[in-house]
Amino acid sequence: MASRSRVALVLRRTRISTAPSTNPLRPLSQIRWQSTATTEDAEGVAQGTTGTSKTIKFTSETYPEIKRDSKFAEITEDHVKFFKEFLGKEASVIDGVTKDATDDIEPFNGDWMRKYRGHTKLVLKPGSTQEVSKILKYCNDNMLAVVPQGGNTGLVGGSVPVFDEIVINMSRMNQIRSFDDVSGALVVDAGAILEVVDGYLAERGNIFPLDLGAKGSCQIGGNVATNAGGLRLLRYGSLHGSVLGIEAVLPDGTIVDDLSKLRKNNTGYDLKQLFVGAEGTIGIITGVSILCPQRSKAVNVAFLGLESYEKVQQAFKAAKGQLSEILSAFELMDNQSQDLVQQVTKNKRPLESEHPFYCLIETSGSNSEHDNEKLQSFLEDVMEKEIVTDGVVAENETQVRNLWGWREGIPECLGHWGGVYKYDLSIPISELYSLVEETREKVAKAGLMGDTDEHPVVDVVGYGHMGDSNLHLNVATRRYDKKVEKELEPFVYEWISKRNGSISAEHGLGLAKKAFIGYSRSDTMIALMKQIKKLYDPKGIMNPYKYI
Amino acid sequence: MASRSRVALVLRRTRISTAPSTNPLRPLSQIRWQSTATTEDAEGVAQGTTGTSKTIKFTSETYPEIKRDSKFAEITEDHVKFFKEFLGKEASVIDGVTKDATDDIEPFNGDWMRKYRGHTKLVLKPGSTQEVSKILKYCNDNMLAVVPQGGNTGLVGGSVPVFDEIVINMSRMNQIRSFDDVSGALVVDAGAILEVVDGYLAERGNIFPLDLGAKGSCQIGGNVATNAGGLRLLRYGSLHGSVLGIEAVLPDGTIVDDLSKLRKNNTGYDLKQLFVGAEGTIGIITGVSILCPQRSKAVNVAFLGLESYEKVQQAFKAAKGQLSEILSAFELMDNQSQDLVQQVTKNKRPLESEHPFYCLIETSGSNSEHDNEKLQSFLEDVMEKEIVTDGVVAENETQVRNLWGWREGIPECLGHWGGVYKYDLSIPISELYSLVEETREKVAKAGLMGDTDEHPVVDVVGYGHMGDSNLHLNVATRRYDKKVEKELEPFVYEWISKRNGSISAEHGLGLAKKAFIGYSRSDTMIALMKQIKKLYDPKGIMNPYKYI
Repeated sequence: MASRSRVALVLRRTRISTAPSTNPLRPLSQIRWQSTATTEDAEGVAQGTTGTSKTIKFTSETYPEIKRDSKFAEITEDHVKFFKEFLGKEASVIDGVTKDATDDIEPFNGDWMRKYRGHTKLVLKPGSTQEVSKILKYCNDNMLAVVPQGGNTGLVGGSVPVFDEIVINMSRMNQIRSFDDVSGALVVDAGAILEVVDGYLAERGNIFPLDLGAKGSCQIGGNVATNAGGLRLLRYGSLHGSVLGIEAVLPDGTIVDDLSKLRKNNTGYDLKQLFVGAEGTIGIITGVSILCPQRSKAVNVAFLGLESYEKVQQAFKAAKGQLSEILSAFELMDNQSQDLVQQVTKNKRPLESEHPFYCLIETSGSNSEHDNEKLQSFLEDVMEKEIVTDGVVAENETQVRNLWGWREGIPECLGHWGGVYKYDLSIPISELYSLVEETREKVAKAGLMGDTDEHPVVDVVGYGHMGDSNLHLNVATRRYDKKVEKELEPFVYEWISKRNGSISAEHGLGLAKKAFIGYSRSDTMIALMKQIKKLYDPKGIMNPYKYI
Repeated sequence: MASRSRVALVLRRTRISTAPSTNPLRPLSQIRWQSTATTEDAEGVAQGTTGTSKTIKFTSETYPEIKRDSKFAEITEDHVKFFKEFLGKEASVIDGVTKDATDDIEPFNGDWMRKYRGHTKLVLKPGSTQEVSKILKYCNDNMLAVVPQGGNTGLVGGSVPVFDEIVINMSRMNQIRSFDDVSGALVVDAGAILEVVDGYLAERGNIFPLDLGAKGSCQIGGNVATNAGGLRLLRYGSLHGSVLGIEAVLPDGTIVDDLSKLRKNNTGYDLKQLFVGAEGTIGIITGVSILCPQRSKAVNVAFLGLESYEKVQQAFKAAKGQLSEILSAFELMDNQSQDLVQQVTKNKRPLESEHPFYCLIETSGSNSEHDNEKLQSFLEDVMEKEIVTDGVVAENETQVRNLWGWREGIPECLGHWGGVYKYDLSIPISELYSLVEETREKVAKAGLMGDTDEHPVVDVVGYGHMGDSNLHLNVATRRYDKKVEKELEPFVYEWISKRNGSISAEHGLGLAKKAFIGYSRSDTMIALMKQIKKLYDPKGIMNPYKYI
């Protein structure tokens, strides 16, 4: 943390104020991450639906155009008997086939957003890679469709069944297998919880190279299967770089034993990469080996106000240049997003006056004095050059959390009025915010946005991981409305496509984006992907109706 | 660079001395990197053979067990006519089929180590991705085998033909296509030279996330195709993390248009990863998009003497903890390797007295004062704890280069006496050096090592990228000798296999390691790899006789 005297120096010189330590910001935590809500990332909370999972509309009703593939067998008592026999323990099989187990099964049928709901009657919880192998081989031989399920914290409906696919839930495989504190190579079961693993690493001075809002529920296997991005990507890079090895099971029961702990191993095709981001469509990840860096001793957070997106870009460039190796987050939030957060939380905003844009900058490094100096010098520079108008620096852990709350709290607060149309997009940085402005204008012009109840749209907001060119375009509404959807789609996807952006930067495809992949991928690439799917899962039993 | 006063402080406190600035170490550059020698990495120079490429033994003679596959067509005048017609320019086709062009063709037939030599009579130099596509489609349709060739700087014979495979040389495709100075995304032709590209980036304050001894000759496409490791991996990670997109051509002429500039794009299988490290066996990379970080303003180098491998490990752990985000290299050299370098160069060694082990530590960061402070504090700590016995810190660019010379100069100096048996291995750090000791003991016990000419072995040395668990075990010999080989193989491979190490950490498989992949990969993994090969190259025309 910044020492008082150094922060005071910044204050005098640059008008950057510290978050009032005698009267700290009211924590946002009370409205964040309910114990039942599990999210893949900070951008996932609340789609505005309510009620228990039983009241969720079935996916098959929401998307009547998706039909159950008749090639798949229906689950019989014989199938259940087979699984019960070798999985042994009662807790490993939740059987809704031979008896009524609706209450037990529903949590595995529905997603936490309450947007997707399947019809499965069988949940299997294997306890070992061998058991996963035996399950998959049997399902493949008997044409039984399956859905691999980790923490079920995804945002695109990828981890719940659509029809009666068998859920293979990985939560019982949750052990840390090994950790080498010299190399930093960690080997874990796929079902290990991210927060548990990161806690284990913290005790040893290391850090998991990935952080997510859903860390308390999401599982490493799911993180890897969805190539989760999250909050540390700017600093530690993508999982394609940090995952050292994978153990996975193919539909035919083959165990892919690629669980290397080596940082370098140039002996053939790097097949494990295919499983990173495959969303359980070619196999089930059962184990992960990953490089875990040293944990930074010093963390600083600054919250800045800026007058234009032009200046946001200048600040980002300056931060990259001056904070360089210690820059660990550069998050963007527009004023509209902050305004809505305030309306929900009633918290006092971090800066006295309002600005069109805000940035949250985090540094993490090994020497707090050095980091403070770099941050101060950066802040002085951007204030003197009038890139940044106002700012605040956290003085303690509580303030760090509070400042992060103004960024992490956005998704949940947006759900306050009703539904949220959410887009997770990669866009070249120079044009990143234009989409928000154009969308807002379009929705306003159509007469759909306003303060009163006859307007479905509350506001159009933009925020996200500026450091990764990753924008979250969110349209907060009082209710889902076909007229709004018509204004947004295919407009947003076409806009992205023209700029060679990505229609799913970090959330993946799942069921939600399957239909739109053509906006980000050529026919050639899609054909090549289908070839891989067919190679590994020729019968198509793995997570059907989704992905490509 | 370290300021004088600060370095002096270190000196007094810890006995770390500076490299004498009035009498700098004699540069090793005069013996390194001859203009004709091109290397993939610092570990590749000199196998001890001499003479022009024409005097190299044909690969087909060295390995009589490898037979030309009769399924491939022989090149005819008609084939040559086809290529000449659409490739146009004379310089794009080196034709040894319809005329004698031996002198022009030989440089493409032989590798720089003078270890491998093919029989090709046709070299094609396409100027565009479309031309590569047309060439490959024609070759595939006509069962003509091909070898993709970049800078031809590899160490495993992967980039030269074995028999009469057509060489597709990428040197004409050498343009920088675009660079985004905000995101750092660079798009280049596959044939662009690493050093040229890095120079372009340096002018813009950025750095290519890979560095190699062969940078003056090697090409980006070849770097990516071989998943080159090199000197910056510790800091910037593997190419699997930094490559954003790839453009490649499949044997059937399909252009894989996956040249994304986005840091995040979770829309389907990450197929580009298959081409990273595929060594030209499933397609030819024609373009690369890659994330290029900010270039560090400050670089420091320290050269340390240590009394045991135990202490080397302690120093590495301390460096990781204390230098953390600025640690950019931690290289290991044993005394034997330094002794041989000195015998060849006659240079004064950096430290006064001899030590069993030496480490070269490099830091790079954005603030030289901070970096100096961190380095000093680290050095004080490891000296006080008696982990490090003696050390020297470079005071200027020349000294930085000279200290690096004692590391980078090893491979070439080892070739001074004759041939070198070279192994590029990944081993868990705790056991990394044991292999060198065991090998040395084994060779000595067999009476093969000594100072006189009747002993084929001069010495067994170990050095390498400690930071990546990557050991280079080198056996310097006066001549290649079957008795030596028998002591080394399969001993080394079995030793590695037992410890789940890699028999090729960064050099790849090529022809040299094809037979040994089973020591690092299971039968299952090899079968899965063969499946991928068959999927993309069903006729097997791409770089045959190599890889898997």
